[in-house]
Amino acid sequence: MANITKKVSWSSRADELGAAGEGTPLLNGSEQSRAFRELSEGGNIFQIGRLSTVDLEEEVTSDEDSVKGRPKEIPHNEKLLSLKYESLDYDNIENQLFLEEERRMSHMSFRCLEISRWVICGLIGILTGLIACCIDIIVEKLAGFKYQVVKENIEKFTEVGGLSVSLLLWAVLNSAIVMLGALMVSFIEPVAAGSGIPQIKCYLNGVKVPRVVRLKTLMVKVFGVICSVVGGLAVGKEGPMIHSGSVVAAGVSQGRSTSLKKDFKIFEYFRRDTEKRDFVSAGAAAGVSAAFGAPVGGVLFSLEEGASFWNQMLTWRIFFASMISTFTLNFFLSIYHNNPGDLSNPGLINFGRFENDSVAYYLYEIPLFIAMGAIGGLLGALFNYLNYWLTIFRIRYVHRPYLQVMEAMLVAAVTATVSFTMIYFSTDCQPLDPEHSEEYPLQLFCADGEYNSMATAFFNTPERSVRSLFHNQPGTYNPLTLGLFTLTYFFLACWTYGLAVSAGVFIPSLLIGAAWGRLCGILLATTTDNGSIWADPGKYALIGAAAQLGGIVRMTLSLTVIMVEATGNVTYGLPIMLVLMTAKIVGDYFVEGLYDVHIKLQSVPFLHWEAPATSHWLTAREVMSSPVTCLSRIEKVGTIVDILSNTSTNHNGFPVVVQVTGNEEPAKLCGLILRSQLIVLLKHKVFVELARSRLTQRKLLLKDFRDAYPRFPPIQSIHVSQDERECMMDLTEFMNATPYTVPQDTSLPRVFKLFRALGLRHLVVVDDENRVIGLVTRKDLARYHMGKHGLEELHLAQT
Amino acid sequence: MANITKKVSWSSRADELGAAGEGTPLLNGSEQSRAFRELSEGGNIFQIGRLSTVDLEEEVTSDEDSVKGRPKEIPHNEKLLSLKYESLDYDNIENQLFLEEERRMSHMSFRCLEISRWVICGLIGILTGLIACCIDIIVEKLAGFKYQVVKENIEKFTEVGGLSVSLLLWAVLNSAIVMLGALMVSFIEPVAAGSGIPQIKCYLNGVKVPRVVRLKTLMVKVFGVICSVVGGLAVGKEGPMIHSGSVVAAGVSQGRSTSLKKDFKIFEYFRRDTEKRDFVSAGAAAGVSAAFGAPVGGVLFSLEEGASFWNQMLTWRIFFASMISTFTLNFFLSIYHNNPGDLSNPGLINFGRFENDSVAYYLYEIPLFIAMGAIGGLLGALFNYLNYWLTIFRIRYVHRPYLQVMEAMLVAAVTATVSFTMIYFSTDCQPLDPEHSEEYPLQLFCADGEYNSMATAFFNTPERSVRSLFHNQPGTYNPLTLGLFTLTYFFLACWTYGLAVSAGVFIPSLLIGAAWGRLCGILLATTTDNGSIWADPGKYALIGAAAQLGGIVRMTLSLTVIMVEATGNVTYGLPIMLVLMTAKIVGDYFVEGLYDVHIKLQSVPFLHWEAPATSHWLTAREVMSSPVTCLSRIEKVGTIVDILSNTSTNHNGFPVVVQVTGNEEPAKLCGLILRSQLIVLLKHKVFVELARSRLTQRKLLLKDFRDAYPRFPPIQSIHVSQDERECMMDLTEFMNATPYTVPQDTSLPRVFKLFRALGLRHLVVVDDENRVIGLVTRKDLARYHMGKHGLEELHLAQT
Repeated sequence: MANITKKVSWSSRADELGAAGEGTPLLNGSEQSRAFRELSEGGNIFQIGRLSTVDLEEEVTSDEDSVKGRPKEIPHNEKLLSLKYESLDYDNIENQLFLEEERRMSHMSFRCLEISRWVICGLIGILTGLIACCIDIIVEKLAGFKYQVVKENIEKFTEVGGLSVSLLLWAVLNSAIVMLGALMVSFIEPVAAGSGIPQIKCYLNGVKVPRVVRLKTLMVKVFGVICSVVGGLAVGKEGPMIHSGSVVAAGVSQGRSTSLKKDFKIFEYFRRDTEKRDFVSAGAAAGVSAAFGAPVGGVLFSLEEGASFWNQMLTWRIFFASMISTFTLNFFLSIYHNNPGDLSNPGLINFGRFENDSVAYYLYEIPLFIAMGAIGGLLGALFNYLNYWLTIFRIRYVHRPYLQVMEAMLVAAVTATVSFTMIYFSTDCQPLDPEHSEEYPLQLFCADGEYNSMATAFFNTPERSVRSLFHNQPGTYNPLTLGLFTLTYFFLACWTYGLAVSAGVFIPSLLIGAAWGRLCGILLATTTDNGSIWADPGKYALIGAAAQLGGIVRMTLSLTVIMVEATGNVTYGLPIMLVLMTAKIVGDYFVEGLYDVHIKLQSVPFLHWEAPATSHWLTAREVMSSPVTCLSRIEKVGTIVDILSNTSTNHNGFPVVVQVTGNEEPAKLCGLILRSQLIVLLKHKVFVELARSRLTQRKLLLKDFRDAYPRFPPIQSIHVSQDERECMMDLTEFMNATPYTVPQDTSLPRVFKLFRALGLRHLVVVDDENRVIGLVTRKDLARYHMGKHGLEELHLAQT
Repeated sequence: MANITKKVSWSSRADELGAAGEGTPLLNGSEQSRAFRELSEGGNIFQIGRLSTVDLEEEVTSDEDSVKGRPKEIPHNEKLLSLKYESLDYDNIENQLFLEEERRMSHMSFRCLEISRWVICGLIGILTGLIACCIDIIVEKLAGFKYQVVKENIEKFTEVGGLSVSLLLWAVLNSAIVMLGALMVSFIEPVAAGSGIPQIKCYLNGVKVPRVVRLKTLMVKVFGVICSVVGGLAVGKEGPMIHSGSVVAAGVSQGRSTSLKKDFKIFEYFRRDTEKRDFVSAGAAAGVSAAFGAPVGGVLFSLEEGASFWNQMLTWRIFFASMISTFTLNFFLSIYHNNPGDLSNPGLINFGRFENDSVAYYLYEIPLFIAMGAIGGLLGALFNYLNYWLTIFRIRYVHRPYLQVMEAMLVAAVTATVSFTMIYFSTDCQPLDPEHSEEYPLQLFCADGEYNSMATAFFNTPERSVRSLFHNQPGTYNPLTLGLFTLTYFFLACWTYGLAVSAGVFIPSLLIGAAWGRLCGILLATTTDNGSIWADPGKYALIGAAAQLGGIVRMTLSLTVIMVEATGNVTYGLPIMLVLMTAKIVGDYFVEGLYDVHIKLQSVPFLHWEAPATSHWLTAREVMSSPVTCLSRIEKVGTIVDILSNTSTNHNGFPVVVQVTGNEEPAKLCGLILRSQLIVLLKHKVFVELARSRLTQRKLLLKDFRDAYPRFPPIQSIHVSQDERECMMDLTEFMNATPYTVPQDTSLPRVFKLFRALGLRHLVVVDDENRVIGLVTRKDLARYHMGKHGLEELHLAQT
């Protein structure tokens, strides 16, 4: 960012900023001067929003152009706010076309729409459940096959010596499988990397993450997650499942696939951001529900991460999708497990039921639980901190696809090697219990009838390892095994998250936590005489798992419910909640949750729940972008094309004002129109020639807008001839005639509340005569956040 | 309502309504004429909002005045909207005083506030848990004593004959106990009657139900519920627990008791509607949590019934209160049950755990469950319909306190008589099982070592009966017993709900449902050969209970979670949800949920989640009240006093406008001030004498407003001398300078969304020059609802 040549000519309109400021007694001199200082302090950071749109001339040379070959250095870009992310529009565009359609619709049509919504949610649930089921079965089959091959090989070489061949086999197998997944992700769809939860969080928050809900992403995601889990990485398949659910929802609800160029001509009413978001919420919930067998947890996850306005009917639909998803999954799994029709199985990760005799807990255990929560918070913070630096490192040095693939392969090989070494040197032999048999017991150097306990943890899919830690009899692990396992797995999982493979962090976190939790339980048991009775190691493994997961991702309500549902027992509600709370409080003291860290590193303009507490001294006048590019109600086509083509501004919403003769003073607001709408109008040549009457304007239908949604063509692809440039365009019918506005003295928290509660994209700031003086967008609000030294302002960046 | 003499002189300002309409091309002629027809069609119903305030002269003679001694007839008042309910203000009043305070506050102060919120939620949880614990223990003790006495008496007289003495004893005992409760409720605090859930629903929705969260109400409620449960009525103690939690929350969060005239000088920051509402949500959740041992269910209940804007931190606090409440309850109950420290007990109603072997269900059972859901919906609709007519009857004829007490006593006596008769004529004898022993087994005419099965259902507190129905071995009830029990209990419960006693409907509903559900299970078992294996009667009892409860109260999400938590088993999530959905869909076809029926019968202006679907043709201009009484920024005290004293309007919010010389055209909006604020200003004589400079105006602090909250004195209690009337009052500092506004063409759904999402009380409608032309309040929006023939408009009534 240091090599930007920039030439900014302040527009003549910039005066208006001052002029508008004059009429406002609340802004005293010093504040005003500070506001201007901030404007000019931009330094080498773009502050596009605050500059005039039309008259701005810039010569932009981005890093890559100027310093060819050098990796893009983005140091501390959590202090920046990227301008490349567009917002979603969760406020209905109530223009005349829309209102006419709504008014034409009968009560019956609305009822049909409502039924379609339920049908779609049902479909989302079924498809998400099916995908989850497929992933689960394929992973189980392939992983089983792999472990079988390696196991036989190890057994063969244990006798004859030369186990290094087995190690090589294991490492090569892992690397090869992971390579496949990494190749797909790096070269075909990079957005499919990681768990997908940060992306879905952003989407539900209202940020348009490019390509995040496309069919291709889904394909790569599903294939990728199978590869990474089978490849033996320290990953889970749950995050990707949530992402998959969201993609399914986004696809199904639109009744067409833009990628496949297939339009089923159904659900056309739902082709807008508002409706689509609702369905994506349902999809995410269905994903959680399938992944953890936690339908209520899924609903809460959706709400905790996404929703702002709680609507009862919507919540019910989300719940319905969740339920159907679990149901579908259970149904097909019951067939797969040769027990067709038995639906009482929980979802995909089955932590196993905690039976009632082992679940009792006593008052004196509560402080212990809280202490474990604190440990989880500390370890979680460490995890996030390490991962943060690792991610910075990756952004700087590992940004080429082939490098990413190689890193993934390296991690896979190292994981296998470390696991093998740990197992090799472990002397923790346990007798084989015919009742609680392990899936792939490795005898190695143990006596006959015994198996290597370390291998239970390492030589297994992570889900099974978690279950073993929760439910194996006391005494099946010795403390040293657990300690070493925790240590190595912690660093492996930390290294793995952020690789260019699609994989989640839930299960590894649970596994780390279960290991040290069980260790705590064992240690506690040894400190007392009749210890093993009260400190059931499985119970402490559960608490540890919750603490670690809470420390890393920092969700509380939904995570409590997910844990409760996944363990099939409500008794632990209170301790799990206390543990998650503690983990969050302790962890938040040091660093944010893992997803938030990654969102910040992407410089996403993410809106939190409330404005920063100490932001009352800021008003709309200070946060808004000004001056604003306004359009007249009847505007010249050429002007519109020029404004849209101005790449340096790239505004997406334009207040429409009543035509005034001179342009000296701001004009009265009469509507708001979006770039996407203007593009559709230009594409369909909805022009009025000056000489003719208004009647010649081509009648455009809502359908035309819906057909173009969501991939509106860029302005460059639309050819407007010189003659057409002279035509006029009447925006009256298409603009949102009643945009939400705020007076310029409105405090930031108030603006924030309005913006957030209604899911707005543009909020017009008007003076006391209803004249446009500014526009508040997501970036203007997301800029302010609570730092260590009070309120801080992020810089805006083009990257 | 038929005897109202009314003289309305349309004000000269009424022209503006028409004038404003002219500038709007969207409203065509026919629509406009219809709008005016609606205005004039008011008939004998007050349409105060639409009439001018100042020029209105009315001679109001209410029913009671005109027809002395006759009961107030309110036929079909679910078609009316009462004007007597005020709204709560969930939008912060951001006036200068408030903003100054906020700006003065440091980051640390905000953190302290946050901590106080958590502390308060903890206190709410503890107190709610304690109250629940007290109620539970007292009820158990007293009911145990009563049943013991009656049992001994029955046993004595079974041998010697003359059981009518026992019947008499039972009936008199019941009546006497119920009388105590009914006396308290009828004569001391009528708002404590019923379950309290409709009232809390209204409160959270934003309607100020008088005296609903007062200490006195809590006292009467607790005493009342003990009496009604011990008195053997067909009631539960769960609804009242939710109400109790809310009252506790409202009290604790204010740091003072207005009733006890005790101010602890803490939590002063929370003395406003916004904050108080949040705490009341937490209190309601804590109540649910204590009642059902369902902390997550409690959170969802609060959200489903109350919240509009979902805030993560708030939700966590609510969850915290819920958890603490369950925890406290379990802790004290564990001490009471001589097992101190064992916290794994579920909450107050313990449905008993469903063990894993009995809970499996299969795909082919799903249709059966859905059918049971439909039955539940039908029975629920019947219940609500009967109760609706009963309530109408009660409003007409049983409105005197002494009549209400007598009715309650009658119901108590009838309940005892019916129960006795049923037990007497029952021949369903079951062998006493020493393992599953009944609490009060009645031998009656059974052989030795056997007990009367009908008595298990009738001669028990309802909670215990439910548990028996869920968990007793197959074969402990014969079908005839269950059928008769369902029939009688259905009508008893229906008759009981709405009596002037404090009592809930949850448990009776569950009991009815469990009875016919178990009956279904038994009948299904007999239809197959190896029946008893697959159709576990306990399982069907649970499904039936869910269906019946869902059919009556029509909650889905929160109820699913409550049922899941109360049974301690997540496996039934899906079937319970399907059943609740079906019950709701079927039930909604006939009549609304019980709580909604009662809310409608009270003519409460309740805002639903969304505007009616077909209301897009209505705009702000048509729904708003106009013309509006506006105040100038510097207003004469006399004018203010006159406006506030005008009993015929009783407006609560006044737009503040920039002073204009003539009053011909509407003035520009510059703020909004509330009646309560004006009252405080008048009380503190914040006047400016005309001759002097502005500096003499007494400085008022936010504290003065907070001290007066929430019981602002009526205007009549404030004496303003003739000299003072001539003074001026400067409202600049006190008004909310940035009220939310909408343009007059905004569609109703859009207005509704803004109003509902932000919890507004007043929404100013402005024209395109920012001049006030109307005011939208809760009543204006609640008037429109979907009837059988499309959009209907409720009439406004003073009652």
